[in-house]
Parts: sequence; C-alpha cells; structure tokens
Amino acid sequence: MSLIVQKYGGSSVADAESIRRVAKRIVETRKAGNEVVVVVSAMGDTTDELMDLANQVVPQPTGRELDMLLTAGERISMALLAMSIKSLGVEARSYTGSQAGMITDAQHGSARIVDVTPDRVRSALDSGAVAIVAGFQGFNRGTGDITTLGRGGSDTTAVALAAALKADVCEIYTDVDGVYTTDPRMVPRAQKIDRITSEEMLELAAAGAKVLYIRAVEYARRHGVTLHVRSSFNNNEGTLVINPVDGESNVEEPLIAGVAADLSQAKITVVGVPDIPGKAAQIFTTVAGAGANIDMIVQNVSAAATSRTDISFTLPKTDGAGTLAALSHARDAIGFETLEYDEQIGKLSLVGAGMRTNAGVSAKLFTALYEAGINIEMISTSEIRISVVTRADTIAQAVRVVHTAFDLDAEEQAQVHGGTGR
Amino acid sequence: MSLIVQKYGGSSVADAESIRRVAKRIVETRKAGNEVVVVVSAMGDTTDELMDLANQVVPQPTGRELDMLLTAGERISMALLAMSIKSLGVEARSYTGSQAGMITDAQHGSARIVDVTPDRVRSALDSGAVAIVAGFQGFNRGTGDITTLGRGGSDTTAVALAAALKADVCEIYTDVDGVYTTDPRMVPRAQKIDRITSEEMLELAAAGAKVLYIRAVEYARRHGVTLHVRSSFNNNEGTLVINPVDGESNVEEPLIAGVAADLSQAKITVVGVPDIPGKAAQIFTTVAGAGANIDMIVQNVSAAATSRTDISFTLPKTDGAGTLAALSHARDAIGFETLEYDEQIGKLSLVGAGMRTNAGVSAKLFTALYEAGINIEMISTSEIRISVVTRADTIAQAVRVVHTAFDLDAEEQAQVHGGTGR
Repeated sequence: MSLIVQKYGGSSVADAESIRRVAKRIVETRKAGNEVVVVVSAMGDTTDELMDLANQVVPQPTGRELDMLLTAGERISMALLAMSIKSLGVEARSYTGSQAGMITDAQHGSARIVDVTPDRVRSALDSGAVAIVAGFQGFNRGTGDITTLGRGGSDTTAVALAAALKADVCEIYTDVDGVYTTDPRMVPRAQKIDRITSEEMLELAAAGAKVLYIRAVEYARRHGVTLHVRSSFNNNEGTLVINPVDGESNVEEPLIAGVAADLSQAKITVVGVPDIPGKAAQIFTTVAGAGANIDMIVQNVSAAATSRTDISFTLPKTDGAGTLAALSHARDAIGFETLEYDEQIGKLSLVGAGMRTNAGVSAKLFTALYEAGINIEMISTSEIRISVVTRADTIAQAVRVVHTAFDLDAEEQAQVHGGTGR
Repeated sequence: MSLIVQKYGGSSVADAESIRRVAKRIVETRKAGNEVVVVVSAMGDTTDELMDLANQVVPQPTGRELDMLLTAGERISMALLAMSIKSLGVEARSYTGSQAGMITDAQHGSARIVDVTPDRVRSALDSGAVAIVAGFQGFNRGTGDITTLGRGGSDTTAVALAAALKADVCEIYTDVDGVYTTDPRMVPRAQKIDRITSEEMLELAAAGAKVLYIRAVEYARRHGVTLHVRSSFNNNEGTLVINPVDGESNVEEPLIAGVAADLSQAKITVVGVPDIPGKAAQIFTTVAGAGANIDMIVQNVSAAATSRTDISFTLPKTDGAGTLAALSHARDAIGFETLEYDEQIGKLSLVGAGMRTNAGVSAKLFTALYEAGINIEMISTSEIRISVVTRADTIAQAVRVVHTAFDLDAEEQAQVHGGTGR
C-alpha cells in the first residue's frame, strides 16, 4: 500500500462540478489500495473575493485578522470535497491547518513551517478514511493564532505533509500535463519533461517557470520528497521531480532540462555613481531597505575621465516604484546623478545539471542568440543555470531559437489545456 | 467599568458598509469605558449560500463536514469586523468558537453547550482589546471537531459568554427597537415593552414572537443573564429581559406582557379513533417517532353510538407531511378511520405573569373574541399563558381586538424598520 499526498489547486475545485470530478479521482486512488491525503486550495477566485471584501472594509488589511479571513476559503473547499467523497461511499474527513498539525512561526501572511504533527491525519488514514487538509494555513503555538503561508502555500502544505507522513509521492495537480522544457504557449514544440532533479526544478522555478513554487520545491529537496506534477484533467504520467542521492552517477542526465522566460522583471540603472569604495554597498543597502528582491547586477567599467560609473540591476516590477523612491531619497547621500527605469526587459534562463560537466553551453547559447539578431544586455550564471536579459519583445523568439539550438524541440506540438494553475 | 456582550445578527453585518457602521458603535461603547465582547453571525445570506453550495455537491449535506463548511461564515464576518474596529484605533481580536472556549457535545448541527472557558476572551479584555467571537459555533473536546449550535445559535453564544464572563448585560442587536406587546406589522399601536421577565419572554417566544430564540432566553434565565434587546439602527433603549429573584415582590408587574400570533402551525385530526384505553398513547408515540413537535391537543367527547372519538393536535407545518405519512402507515394498528389536515389555522397567545394572581383573564379574552365574531377552535393554558386556535384569516383581527381589550394599545403608532433580524 502506498501513501499518496495529492494537492489540488483552486482551479481544480472551482465549482461544485469540479469538486465532484476531483472527488471521483480521489476515490479511484483510494480504491486502488492507496492511503490518500488530499491538500486543497480555496475554490477558484474565493481568496481574491475575500481580499476584495477586506479592502472594502479597511485600506490595508494585514496580519492576524487577514489570515483569519482568508483561511475561511480552504475551510469551504475542504468541507465540500469531504462531503463529495463520502457521498461516493468512501469515508473522508477534513482538517484545518491547525487540526492537521501544521505548526508555524507567528509571521502572519507569510508564516514559516516549524513543525508538522499530523497525528489526526495519520489516525484518519489508519481508520481507512481519506484525509482532506486545508492548504496554505497553519497555527502558531505561542499565540494560539491561525497563520497563512503566503504565495504557493498549498504546494508547501502538501510537501510538508508528504515529508512528515513519509509519503511515497506528493502529486501536484495542475491544468498542464507536467513540467515542460519551456512554456508551451511560447514554443509549441516544447516537450514534457519525464524526470527532472529538484535542483534543476528549483532553478527553473526561480527563472520564471510557473508550474511549481520555489518554496515547495526547496522543501521537497531538503526532505527528500518526490514530486509528481500532473494534470487533473487526464491520467497521463506527468513530470517526476526527483532527489538523486549525493554522488549517485547519473550518466543519462540530459545536458539541458529546460528554458525559462521571465517578463516580470524591470531594470534600474543608477547613473553616475562616484567610483569610490563603498558606493555599491550603499546602493544595495538602500534597495534592501525598500524590501526589493534583486536578481542580476551589472557594474559598468568606470569612465576614467569622470571617475563615475553606472550600476544596473533587475528586480520584480512590483518592487520598482518603492525602490526608485528609496534611491531618490538617498540620492545626495550616495552622490549619483540620475536613475533610469526600464520595464521592457525579458530574461531567458537555460537550466541543466549537465552544464557542470559540459563546457561550451554558454558559447552555444550566445551564438544562437547572435545568429537570431538578439542583443544580450546582462548575463548572470549559477552552477547549473545561465540567464541573459534581452528586450522584452524579443524574448519569445529568443526562447524558440535557444530551445531549437539545444535539441529540445519535440516532434509534435504539445497539447495545452486552458485555464491557469494555482 | 461594565462588561457588555453585544450580539449582531447577519443583517447588521450584511456588507462592508454595515460592518463599518457596527464597528463604529462598538468603538463608542469601548471608548465610553466598557469592556466589550462582540458575538457576530455570518454576513447576510452567507449561511444560505454555503448551504446551496453543499446542496450542489451532495443531496443531503449533514454532520461534521457541514459544520466545518458553515462555520466559515462567521470566520469571515468576525475577521472583517475586527479589522474595521482596529482601523478606528481600538485593538480588536477575533476568536472562533473553539478559541473562545465554547465547548459542546458532539451533536453536529445542533450541539449543546457543555462548558464555556473563555480564557482568551478574558485575556483580550484584560489587555484592553475588544474580543469578537464567532456566533453559532463550538468545539467538541472528545472528537476535536468543530460543531454548530443550530437555529438561534448566535444568540445562545452571546448569552453563554455573558454568563461565563459575568457580564453586566447581554445586548441583542436587531432591526426593531425591542420586544413589542405584539407584532407591530399586525397591530400598528403595538407598544415597545420596557421590561419583561424572562419567564414571560420564554412564553412569548414559544408562542411565536420571533425577536429572541427560546433557547437563548432559557439559557439567560437559568444563568441569571440580563438581556437587552435593541436596535442597531439607533441608540434608543430597547427591552430589558430581567430575572426577578424568587419571591421578590413585583407589585407593578402589568397583567399582560404581550400578545403573540403564530401562523406556522397546522392541525391534524385523527377521525374515528376507537374509544378504548391506550389509543391516544399509540397515536402520540407514532407522532413522536416521526420527530414532530406537537403543541396543543384536543380530544372530543366520544359519540356513544359508535364508541369512537376524534383527536386533534397542532404541530409545525414543516412536520406535517412526515407525521401524516407515519400515521397513515400505522392506521391499521391504531384502528382510526381517516386523517384530516388543516393548514389554515392561527394561534393567538396572551402572556403575562400577572395572570397568576388575577382571575378573569380568560373570560375577558373569550369575550373580546366573541364580540368580534371570531370562533375559538382549541384552547390551551399554562400558568402565565392562554393560547387559542382560530381560523388563520381571522388572526390579525383577533390580535388587534385582544390587544385593545387588555389596554395594550399605544397612543402613537410604532416606527418599524424594514429587514429581518437574525
């Protein structure tokens, strides 16, 4: 008997019909002889609707009461799902984050899991029932208060439960067939990846692939949880995200796992920074103080005549305004001349564990882009990733030529379902 | 400093604007130097909407999962209300039934309160905060599961908290100014009652007055909690429901507290019952087995020629079909001839503790009805109540003439707000 954790996002339980469909799938898994734990998000747009309601009452809803409000969403979906499963003749019980033992710190809105004590979930399984657990929510022991895990919280709940229960696999259901070599909406010949290491998956997620949240992948990697990303609309095998044991030879590992595009970033250039020690530190202390998550940094060579230099960095567009304001405020202290802000950039990232042992990947990447007439504005690399910034309007073409250059194109075009995963 | 428990029903918190209005009222009460505990129902039609959703998923939603679902409603309203109060500069914290220590038995859908341990509520008050508590919900220690208290549950939550916290008063906010001598929509000269004993209030509620739930009044009576029924739309004094100490003389107590009308009952007549011992017991055992709550019973004098009699009783219309089916099924065993079912009845009840010591109340009642040409079909009495059944279409006239006969008419017509209280 296997223990399977299944996570269904909001689009998989958007209405009564979807809930009945998901219930049927869960019952099939149970009747096939597996123990099943289900983690569920709030139905469809429920979380957004609750947020709207809060915004009508107060300008900036936050903290304890916002978490209390938002956690009503999963309470609704999990209870309906449990009812639906029971109506199909299989016992099911729903548990809030608190009841399922998702113990977190007290950071409302973005709580961190500090312990998982799923005793009631384990008892439910032992009694033959399916356990339904509210995603996204937890409980702080010190305050006795309900918390939420923030973006991607339901994926994290599923992975954390899978780790605590020593599940055989954690299935993440979405509206696509799995993880692709690149976004199939951008490159029709994108291929579904059958197996990918969690390390590669992390880099792809960080580089803009939206199918899994970085945090859940990190948790899975740290706790050795195997993820299976698959569609809730069919029974196809999806993508296994595996954790090869250290030192394990993996000779068949492909050079490149995938190509990710990210259009959510902007570039700030601080122009005319005095080229003296400590100025970069001053700039990035200011940026950090504004709460921005910076990604790539380029410092130009100083123009000898002026002893001034330019420093550029990328950051999420959503952090743009706040960061510009903070830098403007610190302009006299830092001594720079002007700020430039550019939202028309795109980032392409090439990810593959094979890069470690294969030279020539960056040369091949740059050549492909050069031959397509695409200009590279910034470059950054990690051990298994190369990222380049180009103009936003060339990013789709850039991804296509790179996908082809690294022999990733499928023989047939991918079948893509509509809708968005959560 | 007084400790005040305030209960707001669903219509008082139906939307963001209503929530802000209620929040302002709570803040005023707090700033006047009182400790404030607020019990809140789900917003407007939320409970009905959740029930609809459940009905779309399964035919007969019940039990643990239905309670889990429905309790999402108060979670939403209480979190929004707490946010709104905080935005006005007063600290507020919301608590679920479980967090507020509303311990119940395990009877899902109609749980009974077995203990109230409001430690967190008390701590919130001690720290100067307003405590917002979800009405209608509780927690069973044995199963660790969430329960709901059933109809009128939020009133009961408020009264139970008031008792446990030794509150000075439990204010029940509604959309009318208080308890009236009769329904102001039926009798425009109905008068608001300033003070009424809980015993009288119980009889009025049982007789069809809808402003308070019987269960909450019973709880208040048993625990000596003073209720103050008042409007959330103005600052008028409402009706105090008091608990006079046993033996306390109350010479100023008026003869009659009020007149209630009830159009929710139907009458079943079992025709041609053999007039031998045990038949009545057989009939009412069958009726009880169908779950019906019977009210008045009349057994006709037996017709000597046939040795058969007719037995009539009243019951809620909602129990009619089930009870008729159960009786039909038992027809041969009981040996009656036919069943008659009549939904066109109305019940008028006159309630007043003064009846105990004043003779002639029933004579005055019957005379008033006789002079108005209204026929009495059934009569029942308790120590402080007389009820009569008439045709439904005469009930409004009956209430008016009785209201006048007992000198209850106000000099001016009552001002009645629209909407329905919960």
